[in-house]
Amino acid sequence: MGTCRIIPLGGLGEVGKNMTAYEAEDSIVVVDAGLAFPRDEHLGVDLVLPDFTYLRERQHMIRGVVLTHGHEDHVGSLPYLMRECKIPVIVATRLTLGLVKSKLDEHGLLREADLREVSPGDEPFQLGPFRIEFVRVAHSIPDAAAVVLETPGGRVVHTGDYKIDHTPVDGQRTDVGKLAELGNRGVALLLGDSTNAERAGVTQSERVVGEAFRQIFPSRTGRILVASFASNVHRMQQAVDVGIDCGRKVAFVGRSMRKNSNIARNLGYMEVPENVILRPNELSELPPHEQLILCTGSQGEPMSAMTRIAYNDHPAVTVQAGDTVIISAKPIPGNELRVHDAINRLARSGAEVLHEDNAPVHVSGHGRAEELRTMLALVRPTAVMPVHGEYRMLAAHAQLARESGIAEENIILAENGSVVELTDGKVRIVDRVTAGMTFVDGLGVGDVHDVALRDRRRLSEDGVLIIVATLSGANGPGALTAAPELIARGFGDGADALLDELREEADRVLRELLADDITEIKLLQEHLHDALGGIVYDRTRRRPMILPVLVEV
Amino acid sequence: MGTCRIIPLGGLGEVGKNMTAYEAEDSIVVVDAGLAFPRDEHLGVDLVLPDFTYLRERQHMIRGVVLTHGHEDHVGSLPYLMRECKIPVIVATRLTLGLVKSKLDEHGLLREADLREVSPGDEPFQLGPFRIEFVRVAHSIPDAAAVVLETPGGRVVHTGDYKIDHTPVDGQRTDVGKLAELGNRGVALLLGDSTNAERAGVTQSERVVGEAFRQIFPSRTGRILVASFASNVHRMQQAVDVGIDCGRKVAFVGRSMRKNSNIARNLGYMEVPENVILRPNELSELPPHEQLILCTGSQGEPMSAMTRIAYNDHPAVTVQAGDTVIISAKPIPGNELRVHDAINRLARSGAEVLHEDNAPVHVSGHGRAEELRTMLALVRPTAVMPVHGEYRMLAAHAQLARESGIAEENIILAENGSVVELTDGKVRIVDRVTAGMTFVDGLGVGDVHDVALRDRRRLSEDGVLIIVATLSGANGPGALTAAPELIARGFGDGADALLDELREEADRVLRELLADDITEIKLLQEHLHDALGGIVYDRTRRRPMILPVLVEV
Repeated sequence: MGTCRIIPLGGLGEVGKNMTAYEAEDSIVVVDAGLAFPRDEHLGVDLVLPDFTYLRERQHMIRGVVLTHGHEDHVGSLPYLMRECKIPVIVATRLTLGLVKSKLDEHGLLREADLREVSPGDEPFQLGPFRIEFVRVAHSIPDAAAVVLETPGGRVVHTGDYKIDHTPVDGQRTDVGKLAELGNRGVALLLGDSTNAERAGVTQSERVVGEAFRQIFPSRTGRILVASFASNVHRMQQAVDVGIDCGRKVAFVGRSMRKNSNIARNLGYMEVPENVILRPNELSELPPHEQLILCTGSQGEPMSAMTRIAYNDHPAVTVQAGDTVIISAKPIPGNELRVHDAINRLARSGAEVLHEDNAPVHVSGHGRAEELRTMLALVRPTAVMPVHGEYRMLAAHAQLARESGIAEENIILAENGSVVELTDGKVRIVDRVTAGMTFVDGLGVGDVHDVALRDRRRLSEDGVLIIVATLSGANGPGALTAAPELIARGFGDGADALLDELREEADRVLRELLADDITEIKLLQEHLHDALGGIVYDRTRRRPMILPVLVEV
Repeated sequence: MGTCRIIPLGGLGEVGKNMTAYEAEDSIVVVDAGLAFPRDEHLGVDLVLPDFTYLRERQHMIRGVVLTHGHEDHVGSLPYLMRECKIPVIVATRLTLGLVKSKLDEHGLLREADLREVSPGDEPFQLGPFRIEFVRVAHSIPDAAAVVLETPGGRVVHTGDYKIDHTPVDGQRTDVGKLAELGNRGVALLLGDSTNAERAGVTQSERVVGEAFRQIFPSRTGRILVASFASNVHRMQQAVDVGIDCGRKVAFVGRSMRKNSNIARNLGYMEVPENVILRPNELSELPPHEQLILCTGSQGEPMSAMTRIAYNDHPAVTVQAGDTVIISAKPIPGNELRVHDAINRLARSGAEVLHEDNAPVHVSGHGRAEELRTMLALVRPTAVMPVHGEYRMLAAHAQLARESGIAEENIILAENGSVVELTDGKVRIVDRVTAGMTFVDGLGVGDVHDVALRDRRRLSEDGVLIIVATLSGANGPGALTAAPELIARGFGDGADALLDELREEADRVLRELLADDITEIKLLQEHLHDALGGIVYDRTRRRPMILPVLVEV
């Protein structure tokens, strides 16, 4: 036997931007290419990508990218990676490829991509020295797979995200038989999802949410809105099925919801008869009790459908007393206040708001401790490397491995950038390479053509623009107390006219929004950022960091 | 019968700064005077107070302040209120007064205060036209009480925060007998705690946490740290009891933990033998398995004991492999990421971290839906006004009232500033007065003498100071890439020397912290804010808004 080097480039010590490089005999296979969403302290950033330095410096070695499933934290950085590295082939299951295709098309990269569809159960395929196959797993998106890599250093099972749902909506169970068979043949190393390792017991079946919908929908006499991740095809399918049974028609609201439902329907992962589908602007022609609205914004994202609906800022959808809003998701840590704000706004408009805390309208896509133990028992790996999670989750997964009888020296708590060597079935951390974050700063949601990889070191080059505005109002912000102040650095001489224009635009944008009763600070910031960023880019082709500072007095 | 006007000045549509004015016959009694903690978008703010305008304009009418319990969101704004209005008397139970005394002393206001101790079961006392008595309730602090007010408009029960814990640690149960007796005599209006109205079932007894400690402590061979709110005396008592049984000595770490444990012990609410108490700096003389450390910082507050311990920045306490950290609290919405960051840091140091998600180490102090229903059934009020909570919680409480048979027109969903009139037992909203937020900006934690009520309209007067620093590092911030940039507005001419000094200080502070491996953005911001704010105040007696902007590249 030989050696395989495994280098996690994202997803360890964090939730998001999962990416792992497998390297042997001058070949690299990349499993997943995800992105993460910025934290509030990442000022002026829209997306966070893995640092591609390691791959960029070895791009001649890359034999392909293998994707476990279609979630953004596993496929979202692929277009950015393709801009920096030649990727000979992208391998994934059917729905994952469908989602990726649409993404690459938006980025104008589709023609350069060689996409190869592989299903669990297909014969293994070869990429360089790696013989690879997929194993079906259940998750909160259809067509998720674990990846089995026969490497020169030994057999590796890379689970991707999974739960062991014995009653998934599409009947596509986690293939415990295949995992056990691999365990019998011998697995040197398991890279396992750690997201819910701290939680005892098992995650409930996705079917539970459908049962909740079946309890809730029939008694409701107003509109029903369901906000969820647009990738949660089974969640949408269950809502649609119950909605149709209750005599409702369905509208998909929000860009990614429309896009993903189209892809899922075209590929046969979702069944919605054409005659029950409405465009958002046709909703007003229908009485509320015949409406089912599936929308984006379950995380309270500032410009998303649900947030705009909550703040009465949506062109097609309004909510009133008698309506029911179901938030079929859990806030990602850091998004709690935004989601709570939206819930409060919706409740204030008279709607009943159901969410994880008061109704069983969400289940996780990640297995809990007992499922992780089951995976360990099936695969019986010699060594375990917890992946996909913050440090505390990795540590909890390590503890489960310990309790399952894995030897202490074979439990690998690695970090992004760790080089893990698998030699003749033995595993250890041998080195450390560059890994970290790359920021993406776009101008508005979905505006991918205008997106820029922000090298934050360009800060001094492109400048900083800070807008300070003071808002007054007895109960929350209401009115501008004075014209906004602009503080600019690095705009050079002769920028006075531009700054005047920006000041006027900031003033105009804020006054318009406040007149429309849009007073949520984050929404105001977002609108300001996009409006001013657009003008600056238009006039100067530069992208200063734009920081809107709104002060309530 | 006559009329009583009830004016909530805080705590409705929000969690925090609870305050309600009762007004009749030219007299005002204020129930509670709480504060709130700022949200991240409240830049440069340390505390949030109710707007006292309404009371300030009628201060000759104020007959006294009645406090339900000693939590900051019910008593924290009292010193600030006393600076603006003459308060003839402050009425509360024994422990509440003990905590308030210490607070007023710090603010130099103790001599001006007339404090009157009243216990549940005492004869009613009179304040102006109001005849008032306390009813014992269980909560996450001892000596909590509901307030019953016989007003000219009818009898009102104001619950304060409560749960119906039938097995509280001190045996002081919510007095359901007294509440039922009030119900029998007739209650016109119930103002009830809504915090957990959305949650089904009942909140578990505080005793459950003690049982968890009893499960956890004996098997641990390293240090045990318990982080909780410093006011949660029963939580501390239970930890101390189990700790002593396991042969551990106890250290109280963190300013408010030391202060509150002293007050509680002096007043007999907590029993800890003198010989088991250690000072933090004596901990190093004891082997880890004999240490029990009770500390502040359960919310991940940047300068708190637990955060500093997690970041290896505490003078007396370190954590290592084999230690156990119990976070015996739930993150207040908005604090999740800070708490998660601290947990990850602690886990990285090798400690086992137990928290609400993986062990039963916390219960809420607020009753859930079934307890709220019990309260409604006992008190049988004619009308209900949900208080203490965000709008969604108030709406959920209103729904419980509806289901209990309260007539729709008698369910009052008020806002801060609503004037609710109670006339001959009939209730309606008749007016709206000024209510809102006042910000407090201090220089560092606990620095109350140096604290300033920030009238944010002084912004243009006192100026704005923005510090932009760029940090680099492969995995998270590591080093300053250049000297920090300062952007100042409103500092006037001739401030160049001061700005140079501030730039040097910012540079020094950041370099020192980074050298000590303190890289958490929020901690760096906090240190910068305090250091530069101190210098500016020292040189100019002004308090500009100071915004540290840290950019990771």
